[in-house]
Amino acid sequence: MAVITLTTDFGQDDHYVASLKGAILQIAPAAQIVDVTHSIAAHDVVGAAFVLRQVFDAFPDGTIHVVVVDPGVGTARRLIAAAYAGQIVLAPDNGIVSLVHRDYELEELRTIANNRLFRGEVSATFHGRDVLAPVAAHLARGLALLNVGPVIDQLEILNLERPVTLPNGGIEGRVLYVDHFGNLISNICEADLVAAVGNAAGASVFVGPLRVGPLRRTYGDVKPGEIVAILGSTGMLEIALNQGNAAAQLRATPGTIVMVR
Amino acid sequence: MAVITLTTDFGQDDHYVASLKGAILQIAPAAQIVDVTHSIAAHDVVGAAFVLRQVFDAFPDGTIHVVVVDPGVGTARRLIAAAYAGQIVLAPDNGIVSLVHRDYELEELRTIANNRLFRGEVSATFHGRDVLAPVAAHLARGLALLNVGPVIDQLEILNLERPVTLPNGGIEGRVLYVDHFGNLISNICEADLVAAVGNAAGASVFVGPLRVGPLRRTYGDVKPGEIVAILGSTGMLEIALNQGNAAAQLRATPGTIVMVR
Amino acid sequence: MAVITLTTDFGQDDHYVASLKGAILQIAPAAQIVDVTHSIAAHDVVGAAFVLRQVFDAFPDGTIHVVVVDPGVGTARRLIAAAYAGQIVLAPDNGIVSLVHRDYELEELRTIANNRLFRGEVSATFHGRDVLAPVAAHLARGLALLNVGPVIDQLEILNLERPVTLPNGGIEGRVLYVDHFGNLISNICEADLVAAVGNAAGASVFVGPLRVGPLRRTYGDVKPGEIVAILGSTGMLEIALNQGNAAAQLRATPGTIVMVR
Repeated sequence: MAVITLTTDFGQDDHYVASLKGAILQIAPAAQIVDVTHSIAAHDVVGAAFVLRQVFDAFPDGTIHVVVVDPGVGTARRLIAAAYAGQIVLAPDNGIVSLVHRDYELEELRTIANNRLFRGEVSATFHGRDVLAPVAAHLARGLALLNVGPVIDQLEILNLERPVTLPNGGIEGRVLYVDHFGNLISNICEADLVAAVGNAAGASVFVGPLRVGPLRRTYGDVKPGEIVAILGSTGMLEIALNQGNAAAQLRATPGTIVMVR
Repeated sequence: MAVITLTTDFGQDDHYVASLKGAILQIAPAAQIVDVTHSIAAHDVVGAAFVLRQVFDAFPDGTIHVVVVDPGVGTARRLIAAAYAGQIVLAPDNGIVSLVHRDYELEELRTIANNRLFRGEVSATFHGRDVLAPVAAHLARGLALLNVGPVIDQLEILNLERPVTLPNGGIEGRVLYVDHFGNLISNICEADLVAAVGNAAGASVFVGPLRVGPLRRTYGDVKPGEIVAILGSTGMLEIALNQGNAAAQLRATPGTIVMVR
Repeated sequence: MAVITLTTDFGQDDHYVASLKGAILQIAPAAQIVDVTHSIAAHDVVGAAFVLRQVFDAFPDGTIHVVVVDPGVGTARRLIAAAYAGQIVLAPDNGIVSLVHRDYELEELRTIANNRLFRGEVSATFHGRDVLAPVAAHLARGLALLNVGPVIDQLEILNLERPVTLPNGGIEGRVLYVDHFGNLISNICEADLVAAVGNAAGASVFVGPLRVGPLRRTYGDVKPGEIVAILGSTGMLEIALNQGNAAAQLRATPGTIVMVR
């Protein structure tokens, strides 16, 4: 029985997440269901794409990731099933898979169209419960992906800014995501860094105009209350405040410029 | 092994939810436990009744719903086990089952009295952990409902306002619940609508004095930022703001009048 | 398959909790994973110690508790595996086990050092995912504890204040924890009370200068809106406001003095 993960913008105050789970359990009562997060900001497809990318590494082969951030529900937007690296994403075709798509090889791409797999009555506003959850449950039980619908050859990809190499040899990117601790996760990965500044030993990291210092290994390499730049657990350049909140102290948000030179 | 769902006002910051789960797992280590929500407002029996009603449709036969919103814990209020449509609700007898009771046929009603099923020591303040959780675990393992206690023939039902038909043929109800997106879920169901205004094609929906327009099919039937009235995924008349928060924009709350005419 | 519980300061907005779970499921796909809470205040080792102590009673033999509140991640602090009463705690060696250690007999204490059990690549900043989660998964599958690393004979214990007996026969303690309902949980347990004021029948409870009244049995023993002192479900002296928030009304916080005399 494959693992099913859930990533949504539903919050946890209402019945919506449980409705997804009930729809899965009606078909696959022994399913192993994992909540990734239900705190994606309402309709924030970029945030969902980031979180999905992060969990992709962590789950076993065969995992089915259901992502429901779906401002276009009920309109003509498609629902897709996309297989990468032995895992499957079920989601609206609105760019949610963009970062997984960038970093993994696409193995199979289908539109979800086989309504024999759906809930008896499909509402106009809750395709997560009525389409994605039951399809995930059937796949978790072993249904082959080809049964969900026909192969397609295009999908929506978000136009996300990439870091740029600077004329003087450095690299300039942006904060992509601010986590619960206030850590600033940039869009600069280790390979970008190496390409731009070599082993980075002598490089300095800047957040906006502020020089943070050299790249270090972990938060505790500076004193509590000091700012530190590291390659974080996400594999991206990350700026943190040891035992504090870097976003609050630096007034940084997604979009703030991060530079290494 | 039946599914066990949990709906409480415990929040998720403390150990209380885990204590419920541990008490279940001590008896039924392989239980499939689903959190519905732990964000019911403290002691909000009406909110719990609404959420329980919503999840009731979504879960498989045999599911056991544990609902712990219990301002009267430790006083003379009873704990009940009520079976509807092949599912069982375990809860204090304080009206939590009111909406399920309205919409499903009661199959069996018992008071929970068999203390051989309880935790060894029953506290005066945490009957969720000490009574409801272990009873749910025993039922999930297959214990027959008759073992929990004697049949009773009365239970508490909340006195919830129903929509009223207007002299001119319309219908007037109220906002019953505001969800995480700010969508306003009214107490007017599809059958109410049909009875009051026929197929509703020519009808207009009002929230307070504001004319929202005709009943539409989905959020995306209006432009982003516009208000829309639909029959939502709950089966109730719902007013939303496409890609926004209707409750904030309309300053609507539970109790705000909704009219169709 | 043993139960694995998770207690962290990660919050639920990011991918971090799911990363822990994925790391477990890669090794133990059928694991029964229970979230205790992810709302420990960032780096609040005392709060984690309290919550861990509370859940310890509630879980079955063999349960593995993973606690990740780890301000020292990546520095020289050790990770430990500590067995008490047939359950195992995996955590940084920073005092998290202090309250369990006070109340249960230590059966086995090891440092986690066997890197064949770890994730292929261990990051400098996410030992929860890379070390504790995979070790928990191996233990849940039946690996003997001796395989995690060598026995050690010391561990960090927090210097937590204990209640003191007053010259006139009463006892003075402090609020240790404020829960989601605003209930004030003190550091005075039933045995402390009995030792200090006998059966406590004639004793009065004070919060700061306010006389709350005698010790009662449950919240509903006073009218809604009134303050009540009870032995709570945690086994500790607790001050609550029936159907309200005692912490807000009394402006009490962790550290506020509680007295019985």
